[in-house]
Amino acid sequence: MTNKEKRQKKVALGIDLGGTFIKSAIVDETGEILSEMQVRTPPGRDVHDIVGEIVKLIGHHQDRHPEIEGIGVGSPGLVDETQAIIRLSPNFPDWNDVHLRSLIAKGTSLPVFLENDVNCFVLAEQRWGAGRKFQNVLGLALGTGIGGGIVIDNKLYRGCSGAAGELGHISVDLWGPKCNCGNRGCVERYLGRQWFIQAARDILDNEEIKTPKQVSELADSGDQTAIKFLEDRGFILGVACTSLIHIFDPQSIVIGGGIAQCGEPLFRGIRKCIEKRAYAILAEKVKILPAELGTNAGAMGAAAVAFEMGNIS
Amino acid sequence: MTNKEKRQKKVALGIDLGGTFIKSAIVDETGEILSEMQVRTPPGRDVHDIVGEIVKLIGHHQDRHPEIEGIGVGSPGLVDETQAIIRLSPNFPDWNDVHLRSLIAKGTSLPVFLENDVNCFVLAEQRWGAGRKFQNVLGLALGTGIGGGIVIDNKLYRGCSGAAGELGHISVDLWGPKCNCGNRGCVERYLGRQWFIQAARDILDNEEIKTPKQVSELADSGDQTAIKFLEDRGFILGVACTSLIHIFDPQSIVIGGGIAQCGEPLFRGIRKCIEKRAYAILAEKVKILPAELGTNAGAMGAAAVAFEMGNIS
Repeated sequence: MTNKEKRQKKVALGIDLGGTFIKSAIVDETGEILSEMQVRTPPGRDVHDIVGEIVKLIGHHQDRHPEIEGIGVGSPGLVDETQAIIRLSPNFPDWNDVHLRSLIAKGTSLPVFLENDVNCFVLAEQRWGAGRKFQNVLGLALGTGIGGGIVIDNKLYRGCSGAAGELGHISVDLWGPKCNCGNRGCVERYLGRQWFIQAARDILDNEEIKTPKQVSELADSGDQTAIKFLEDRGFILGVACTSLIHIFDPQSIVIGGGIAQCGEPLFRGIRKCIEKRAYAILAEKVKILPAELGTNAGAMGAAAVAFEMGNIS
Repeated sequence: MTNKEKRQKKVALGIDLGGTFIKSAIVDETGEILSEMQVRTPPGRDVHDIVGEIVKLIGHHQDRHPEIEGIGVGSPGLVDETQAIIRLSPNFPDWNDVHLRSLIAKGTSLPVFLENDVNCFVLAEQRWGAGRKFQNVLGLALGTGIGGGIVIDNKLYRGCSGAAGELGHISVDLWGPKCNCGNRGCVERYLGRQWFIQAARDILDNEEIKTPKQVSELADSGDQTAIKFLEDRGFILGVACTSLIHIFDPQSIVIGGGIAQCGEPLFRGIRKCIEKRAYAILAEKVKILPAELGTNAGAMGAAAVAFEMGNIS
C-alpha cells in the first residue's frame, strides 16, 4: 500500500462560543486535537462582531489546515430544531432568533453546523472522553447554571424543538426555592454557581468564600463542615441522577464543569444517593464518571457535531 | 387490480398478561382489532399454568386467523435487555429470571416477542391512540403503581438493561415520604392507587373512600374539597411532567390508567403546573393528552411490539 492509498483521517473544526472566550480546535475523527486557538469574545457581545471573529478564526485555521471538511459551532442558548437559529441565550441576552448558522456560513465555503454548547460537551465526552465505552450517556455540566445533554445510540437526542437535555431544570423539591427559570426546586437552584456559593457561605459561616474552588480547598484541608457541605450538594444532585437512572437506564452519567472539580466529596454524595435510592439492578450498572476532556470538550464536541451532521467521517 | 393482487394487511396477536386477566387481541397494521378474547389469570400465578393458558389462547386465535404472523406478549415487571426474560415482577412475586419468551415459543411456530406491559400501552397510544400524530411521546399509566414508557422516533426506548421508562419513580420531593421502591418522594408515592386513596380519605375526611372513582364522583357532584384534591394531585404529577418536558422536549405526554379517569380536575392540575413551571417555549408545544385506547391498549401495544420487532409490517 502506498502512502497515497492510505486513507487520510478526516478533520473538522470545532468552535466553542463562550461568554468570555471563543475557543477553537481542529479535531480528527479519532478525537485528536491537531491545533487549537482561542480569542476573547468581543465585549459588547454584538452578534456581527462575534461572527466576524469566528470567520477570522476559520480563515486562520484553513490557511494551515486546508483539509478541514466541516465546521461545528457550539453556542450557549436554545438552538432551534433546524440547528440554524439561536432562539434565546442567557449569556447573550440581546439574542432573539439569531440566524447564527447562516451568518457564519456566509463567511466560509465549508458546511457549518450549530449545536447547543452543553450538547457539544456531552457528545465529546461520549465519543472521546469519560463515556467513550458507552452508547447511551447522559451528561451534566455544572457551570454558572447546570446544563445537560443526552446521547442515545451514539447520537445526540434533541427533542422536538431542539431543546431536550435541560437536566439542570429537573425539580427535586416541588415546593423548594424558586429557580431563575420560574420553576421551583430545580437542581440548578442548589448547584448553579451563585446558589452553590451562597449556600457555602451560609453553611460554612464564611463570607470570604467567592469560588467553588475555595470550598474544595477547605475540604481538602480536612474541614469537616466543607466536606459535609460538598457531600450534601452531591446528594441533591444524586436525587436528580436517580430520577434520570429510572427514566433512561443509562450506561453512564458524565459530570463536568467547574463545580465537578470539587472532587471526591461531591461524587461521594452523588454515588451515596444513587446507592440508597435507585433500583439496585440499575444502580449496579450505571457509571457515574467525572468528565475527562477538560476545557477543550466544547470545541471538540462542536467538531463531533460536524462529523455527525456532515457525514464526514 | 384483482383481489389477489391487493396487498393483504399484516396481522399480529397481542397478549396482555395482567394479575387478574390475560387479554388478547388480533390487530392489523392499522390498529384495527379483528378479534379479542380474555381469560382469567390462573389464581396461583404459577408460570407454567400461565404459559399453558397463553398457548391455548394462541391456538384458539390461530384456528380462526391463520394469517397471524407474530405474537407480542406484554408482561408486568422488568423485561431484560434481550426481551426474553422477566427479571422480576411486582405482580408475580415468585418470578425471578423467568424465561417467558422461550417458554411460550415452545408452544407455537410463530415468532414471539416480549415487552413490559406499560411499554406496550405507550407504544399503542403512540401508534394508534392519543399520540398518533407524534413521533416523540412519553406515556404514564396511573394504576396500582405508576408506570411509564418512552417512544422516540416512533420506537420504544428501552435503555441499557431494558428497564428505561420507570417514570413513576421520578422523585419530586427529595425528603418526601418513602416509596415502596426505596426512593423518597416518588410521584408514585402520591398517585399510586393505595397512596391516592389514603390521601383522599385523609384530606376529604371520609373513610368510606375505597376507589379513585368515588373521589371522581364526589368532584363531579360539586364537592369542592374533592375537586381541589384532584387538582393538587394533578399538580404533583405536573411537577414530574415539567421535569420530563425539560429533559425530553417531547411532542406529547399521554396519561392513562384508572386514576387518569378522574378526568378534568386532575388534568387541569397537571396543565396548571406545566403552564406555571415549564419553559414557556416548550410548554406551549407539548400536548398533555388522556389515553384513548382504553383497556385494549396493552394487547394492542403487544401486537405493535410484534410488528416493530418482527419486521412484519
